Amino acid sequence: MTTVSVLGSGIMATALSFPLADNGHDVRLVGTHLDRDIIDSIKKTGVHPGLDRKVPETVRAYQLEEAGEAFEGAEVALSGVNSFGVRWAGEQLASLLKPGMMVLSIAKGMEAAENGDLRILPEVLAEGVPPDLLPQVSWSAIGGPSIAGEVAARRHDTCVVFAGRDADVLRKLATLFRTDYYHVWTSTDFLGVEVCAALKNCYALGAGFAEGMLERAHRSGSRDRNYNYSAALFAEGAVEIVQMMRLLGGRPETPIGLAGVGDMYVTSQGGRNVRAGRLVGTGLPFSEVRKRMPGVTLEGAAAIVVIGGALPKLTGRGIIKPEDFPLLRHLHGVIAKDEPLNMPWDTFFGPQNAPPYEQIYETGD
Amino acid sequence: MTTVSVLGSGIMATALSFPLADNGHDVRLVGTHLDRDIIDSIKKTGVHPGLDRKVPETVRAYQLEEAGEAFEGAEVALSGVNSFGVRWAGEQLASLLKPGMMVLSIAKGMEAAENGDLRILPEVLAEGVPPDLLPQVSWSAIGGPSIAGEVAARRHDTCVVFAGRDADVLRKLATLFRTDYYHVWTSTDFLGVEVCAALKNCYALGAGFAEGMLERAHRSGSRDRNYNYSAALFAEGAVEIVQMMRLLGGRPETPIGLAGVGDMYVTSQGGRNVRAGRLVGTGLPFSEVRKRMPGVTLEGAAAIVVIGGALPKLTGRGIIKPEDFPLLRHLHGVIAKDEPLNMPWDTFFGPQNAPPYEQIYETGD
Repeated sequence: MTTVSVLGSGIMATALSFPLADNGHDVRLVGTHLDRDIIDSIKKTGVHPGLDRKVPETVRAYQLEEAGEAFEGAEVALSGVNSFGVRWAGEQLASLLKPGMMVLSIAKGMEAAENGDLRILPEVLAEGVPPDLLPQVSWSAIGGPSIAGEVAARRHDTCVVFAGRDADVLRKLATLFRTDYYHVWTSTDFLGVEVCAALKNCYALGAGFAEGMLERAHRSGSRDRNYNYSAALFAEGAVEIVQMMRLLGGRPETPIGLAGVGDMYVTSQGGRNVRAGRLVGTGLPFSEVRKRMPGVTLEGAAAIVVIGGALPKLTGRGIIKPEDFPLLRHLHGVIAKDEPLNMPWDTFFGPQNAPPYEQIYETGD
Repeated sequence: MTTVSVLGSGIMATALSFPLADNGHDVRLVGTHLDRDIIDSIKKTGVHPGLDRKVPETVRAYQLEEAGEAFEGAEVALSGVNSFGVRWAGEQLASLLKPGMMVLSIAKGMEAAENGDLRILPEVLAEGVPPDLLPQVSWSAIGGPSIAGEVAARRHDTCVVFAGRDADVLRKLATLFRTDYYHVWTSTDFLGVEVCAALKNCYALGAGFAEGMLERAHRSGSRDRNYNYSAALFAEGAVEIVQMMRLLGGRPETPIGLAGVGDMYVTSQGGRNVRAGRLVGTGLPFSEVRKRMPGVTLEGAAAIVVIGGALPKLTGRGIIKPEDFPLLRHLHGVIAKDEPLNMPWDTFFGPQNAPPYEQIYETGD
């Protein structure tokens, strides 16, 4: 039996307690300052309100002020906050981590420096930790297609990839989580998996555009569909994720699998980001969409602002070309600058996306 | 104005007459022996019954016995039959083609020899053509995500790739078809695009399994979803398509774009193959599913039988390993041998799928 302390009690963090508890591990769920009601509910009734389901009986819930107790004797620290909470979580972990602990993070996103340099979130998470402790703690993260409610529903098969630099640590972590429904692979392409995780959120927002465009044309609900449009965006998204691998140093094969196209597929099937994309498709400027979804976390939109916003800076420094990442640039225009949706098809699938391959497609126009 | 004669008047062949007619070309639609009612309907009312829409006014319809007239002076021969009709279409084209004509094919599938060797359909199509005529005709094909009804609905953006060995021919063909909604790229990876087109049909059938499994558990229609399952299959499908590129000699980047993940995405969104997969997911043996869908063309199931059936032969000859293509092998067991659905998760994403890359994932178990 291993003790796993989870910082954050959102639906994904809590869902992960199911395979852990099924394997007989000691899971301690620590709410953030935003999770007080969740922890209260679990303490009183066992029910997680967001998941709308009882957590496993052996899982214990703690308010943030009880975090010290919750982390006592823990071998694994699961950072269960989303991309907006990573810096905060790093500060908390600074005092909670002990030498030898394994940190596993679930946030999907990236951070950009002033000059446009992009960093993966586990680096941000580790930043708050004292330099002498840093090398005594391992850092890993979860990628791949995993909707929380399906993991918590059990027996819903879910395939994920645990990524980090230390293969031994990954093997240990994978063993803790593996059940007959939660299938875990490991990858030492830490950067590649994390970049895929961040980018798929960007492109999946666009999966909503097509449906919104039909609504605008009053054709939604009819037999009319607009899947060709979404599929073309999916394909260009995959091309650009591979391109980002080359730029940042991830393995080119990582996007072709769970972390890349697998996760982009699941995220494109629905959820808040796709809903935001749908509203954009109806013709609303994104600032208006944002107003209509008050308090709703939109990690895809946030990732577009961060990563898309870095592209002009990287272009200015000569690191990428102006014709690189045409879809992500357009998404950034729409989300960050309220530009209207006007897909620049002719800029997609160009030879600029190709090296080190000869050429993916010969250009059309 | 260019004359394009289309052999076959199914919904995809007919849909392609829309961009051609919009560009002012002379389109002549020739029905097969199975299309008599379609041609009658177009001749009388202009309406294609399958598309449930009028074809463009300039498009002329011909019964099969009028094919000679329809092909007179044609510069392009569009082979508009599906994978089941390719051999027949080749025999027809043998007497209809003239030196200098460009053939463009839309069928998606593969053919296997007795020993398991796999061939792309344009090769089968060309087989019936007299040897002296063969080098005087060019052969190309269309790949990428393109649902016929959306192309025919116009203004529904569709991105496709025209593939062949002759870049000049591809440029000419692309120019004939390009409109502001029908976007055409070209690729000289003829084999790669065609292999993607065939394989995506196999894997997309599996996109229905998850929904069927929920129905079986009486959870369909509830908030419960099973997208993680479908996404994992999508990811493994992408891995196996890349692996097939290596085996048959396509470019490894071709699956990452319109022809591969783009087309697999659109095909996974619905249609007859997904419906068949859904019924399999409910627990029915495929032979029973087949009975419940009488007369329905299932190109995905057919491709699974052909390509999946070739795998043991290729394994026996030492060309692939027993652990290669685990998902396609399981699909073959389900579709061709009535085996029950029992996803072999632990065999997915293995290092056997990796070379020439180092390793996609370290194995789990």
